[in-house]
Amino acid sequence: MEKYDRVFELAKNRGFIWPAFEIYGGASGFYDYGPLGATLKRKIEDAWRRFYCVGEGFYEIEVPTIGVEAIFEASGHVGGFADPMVTCQQCKESFRADHIVKETMEIPDGLKKEQLTAIIKEHDIRCPECKGPLGDVYDFNLMFQTWIGPGQKKKGYMRPETAQGMFVDFPRLLRFYREKLPFGVTQIGKSYRNEISPRQGVIRLREFTQAEAEVFVNPQFKNQHPNFGAVRDLALPLWDENAQLSNGPVTPMRVGEAVERGTIANQYLAYYVALTHKFLVWVGIDPARLRFRQHMRTERAHYATDCWDAEVMLEGLGWIEIVGIADRTSYDLTAHQKRSEVDLSVFIPFEKPLKVKKTVVTPDMKTIGPKFKGKAGKIMAALKAMKPEELDRPEVRLDIDGEEVVIDSSLFKHETAEVDVNGENVIPHVVEPSYGIDRILYSVLEHAYDEEIVQGEERIVLRLNRTVAPITVAVLPLLSREPLTGRAAGIAQTLKNAGYFVEYDDSGTIGKRYRRNDEAGTPFCVTVDFDTIEDGTVTVRDRDSMAQVRVPADGLAGLLSELLCTGRPLEGYGKKV
Amino acid sequence: MEKYDRVFELAKNRGFIWPAFEIYGGASGFYDYGPLGATLKRKIEDAWRRFYCVGEGFYEIEVPTIGVEAIFEASGHVGGFADPMVTCQQCKESFRADHIVKETMEIPDGLKKEQLTAIIKEHDIRCPECKGPLGDVYDFNLMFQTWIGPGQKKKGYMRPETAQGMFVDFPRLLRFYREKLPFGVTQIGKSYRNEISPRQGVIRLREFTQAEAEVFVNPQFKNQHPNFGAVRDLALPLWDENAQLSNGPVTPMRVGEAVERGTIANQYLAYYVALTHKFLVWVGIDPARLRFRQHMRTERAHYATDCWDAEVMLEGLGWIEIVGIADRTSYDLTAHQKRSEVDLSVFIPFEKPLKVKKTVVTPDMKTIGPKFKGKAGKIMAALKAMKPEELDRPEVRLDIDGEEVVIDSSLFKHETAEVDVNGENVIPHVVEPSYGIDRILYSVLEHAYDEEIVQGEERIVLRLNRTVAPITVAVLPLLSREPLTGRAAGIAQTLKNAGYFVEYDDSGTIGKRYRRNDEAGTPFCVTVDFDTIEDGTVTVRDRDSMAQVRVPADGLAGLLSELLCTGRPLEGYGKKV
Repeated sequence: MEKYDRVFELAKNRGFIWPAFEIYGGASGFYDYGPLGATLKRKIEDAWRRFYCVGEGFYEIEVPTIGVEAIFEASGHVGGFADPMVTCQQCKESFRADHIVKETMEIPDGLKKEQLTAIIKEHDIRCPECKGPLGDVYDFNLMFQTWIGPGQKKKGYMRPETAQGMFVDFPRLLRFYREKLPFGVTQIGKSYRNEISPRQGVIRLREFTQAEAEVFVNPQFKNQHPNFGAVRDLALPLWDENAQLSNGPVTPMRVGEAVERGTIANQYLAYYVALTHKFLVWVGIDPARLRFRQHMRTERAHYATDCWDAEVMLEGLGWIEIVGIADRTSYDLTAHQKRSEVDLSVFIPFEKPLKVKKTVVTPDMKTIGPKFKGKAGKIMAALKAMKPEELDRPEVRLDIDGEEVVIDSSLFKHETAEVDVNGENVIPHVVEPSYGIDRILYSVLEHAYDEEIVQGEERIVLRLNRTVAPITVAVLPLLSREPLTGRAAGIAQTLKNAGYFVEYDDSGTIGKRYRRNDEAGTPFCVTVDFDTIEDGTVTVRDRDSMAQVRVPADGLAGLLSELLCTGRPLEGYGKKV
Repeated sequence: MEKYDRVFELAKNRGFIWPAFEIYGGASGFYDYGPLGATLKRKIEDAWRRFYCVGEGFYEIEVPTIGVEAIFEASGHVGGFADPMVTCQQCKESFRADHIVKETMEIPDGLKKEQLTAIIKEHDIRCPECKGPLGDVYDFNLMFQTWIGPGQKKKGYMRPETAQGMFVDFPRLLRFYREKLPFGVTQIGKSYRNEISPRQGVIRLREFTQAEAEVFVNPQFKNQHPNFGAVRDLALPLWDENAQLSNGPVTPMRVGEAVERGTIANQYLAYYVALTHKFLVWVGIDPARLRFRQHMRTERAHYATDCWDAEVMLEGLGWIEIVGIADRTSYDLTAHQKRSEVDLSVFIPFEKPLKVKKTVVTPDMKTIGPKFKGKAGKIMAALKAMKPEELDRPEVRLDIDGEEVVIDSSLFKHETAEVDVNGENVIPHVVEPSYGIDRILYSVLEHAYDEEIVQGEERIVLRLNRTVAPITVAVLPLLSREPLTGRAAGIAQTLKNAGYFVEYDDSGTIGKRYRRNDEAGTPFCVTVDFDTIEDGTVTVRDRDSMAQVRVPADGLAGLLSELLCTGRPLEGYGKKV
């Protein structure tokens, strides 16, 4: 069995992940998180909140997953968020056109539908299911569509990313942050992509969870992150565009140097690349299987100036993107401002007012008013908008509602004056770290998965970080009978009351229960035996080293807190068994 | 302004809740949680997890919000989850038919579409928008529908409740819980109902969050909850069916008594009614504005044996359901077993094997085989299935595939033997507490909202429970200049590192900032002044009493932990100012 299959087998059997709707035959691209998986997911999300919401001070918001059409027209998803599709004219099955062609020959990514149609015709590529002829390639929009309210009057889409919610809410968010840049806003929630034929198991889902932060910043200060000093000396495994073009290696480079050399476009972007590295290692990604790959100029979204993907090495799948960190510039806010006609700029005061030369026009209202009546107002506005050199003429020709109006220069005066300008309206730029929580979770599982031989038998163990492990401690009576069971249940309850995720387990031999907990990634097992009844001590076993120590039962909550906070080995506490 | 409007105004301005997609004109039934609202929501959900996941030991799972059609066919949502709708034949606008009729006259709930059509015709009720004639009333299904994958081949629905996910996953969950009842499983997540014309603001949403627990229990033991002792003496404000019929009052009744009297159907149901009371009060629902109303026989789902709603009193809206606690019996699992043809029963071993009398038939195969050939197998099976008295005849007539076959009694022997039966297969019953998180959140806001006159001025204050308040502490430099700002920022960072939600705020007068934090529900403000620079002490102010004490800045994290855990008044700590 391949390692991916072994990891997934464990994930299914221990209750981490399994295919959704199994009793109804399933549906590709949909998976469930079982009891341990959902708990692990929650703990990864909580860790993300500690980094971004508590640490960075970015507030989280929550907007609906269904969005109205205008949002996705503005964002470009209605027009452009599509994959090339082709349908068999015989069996009517549909396929990703580029995938089908790739099964026959090598082609570059990103070919247009016309190009793909031509290749299919030229090489007589046929339906992989029934060998029937394929039709022309067309664009299939990847958004799930629905209707809001009765009738088919108001289109709605399941959002393809959480980001748009932060852009659409920008006016209220700006007010919340008291009209000052920079500020960050986050969202953790479901997004949806109606993939044509999702493969790769949990890596390509039709419904998935994103954690995204949008950091709104004055473009002038993109190179001055207030906390850059905290990451400057961190070395990151970078694979920039040049290295990719020359087939060069991933190079460790300090964050400060990467910005100075221009490898990463600016301090803001670099800061969130660094924070991503810290976060991923913290939740349990193996740093030796992690790299940051710069998007090639050709694969970048047309608006992005620079973009880096955190990629992890997965067995059988290769390097897979799990986080994208992009400089989205002012693209999104500009698009929404245009579509909604709501001003999404921020007034940025200058440090001191600028003196600006300005033409001041004084029209002769007494004459213009009676002469032009209803048009007088528009004429004045048009005059005021003109440049000095346009006004220095005997007569001025204006276009008023498509009609030419001639104004004699005797009808107005103009002069140049110096005025104070206190600031300017700027559309903020957005730097966005965007995390794929499902892929991170699967990567954490695979990187934690280990097999070893213990006393001649294979032991499978999930070496999950203690803080993200779904169950923190299992309480096991040595035998399934009183007074051991009652005492063990009491200890379990005490630890629950202290807020820990506790599993009480009395079925099977103690060896079997240890193995079960190794496979669940439970860092500590507490065993209650007859000595516990006599002297109040219990055995605590460490998942990784399998070391056992004897400690008083009533100090367990404190011991766990210490072990979780410090990460120290269990062996330093209590009497070795 | 009505109180609902005042609360909602505050919610909008402080960043709790605002209408979704505002820059695109909004869409009724959709709201956003802003920075404070999303944080409050998260804290309420976390509290729910402490009660249900940690406390009760019910694991959380997470299944997709999009479901395949079979699920909702089995659950009855495809066939029956609809509201009566009527469309104006002139302006084509659609309306809830019962709502339109209710604007003209009093009618009972739950009238059928034919009855509503007749009333509309008889009373010539017309379109509320254009006074045009209305068409016939029809059923409008409330699920948002979409298509999974390309083409319109695979229907999908946005789930109308999270519960179905736990039922569909039952086989895997049972295995996770090592094939033993009782066990509980929870889910917190989005559900969707495409309301025809949602009103009542945030109370009736098209996309909302549910927290549901499904407790699977052996029906034999529904009256033996293992932890019933912990709630037996809790008095609950119950309004049972009889009290409602006789227009009687809400009566406080102890949980134990309610079960003994038969007011609440069984211990399991009563236990979760009690737990719901504890939870709601804990997150900040005013117990004086909370009651539990029993569903009337006429309004219960046809399968439910008993059902109680937690209702809160809201200004301008009256009593509103925020939690439902239902005994769903074996209805859901039975329906899914039937539709999926997957066995969803649990083998329940008897305490000791039952001796059961059974007829043992021994056919004379040597004769039957050659004589009946291909039918021989079916004949034997039919014989074995017969009762002893049916076999005590000279000849036995069998129906084999619609054909009568006569078997002479000489062709078989039969005798009665006693055999051991070790257990039976039972479809579990389900007790379900189902929480509407959005309604709870709004109720918490309204019950926390307070206005008072302080020194001749109105003070608005959100008296949120300290643990659910979105911001735990605000750090305020007395003046917006160094060294106060630097010192305050340092204190804020230290508290963030300790895991608290901290707001640093230096804009406006100190009085304005106190008020802003009162409105945000921030329980504590820390003020940094020139004495702080000299002696390291700060002023801590309590939101509710406005009392102020002076304490050392470096003990703040510990002080907050103490104040949050114990709920004690601030006045007991430090020197009064």
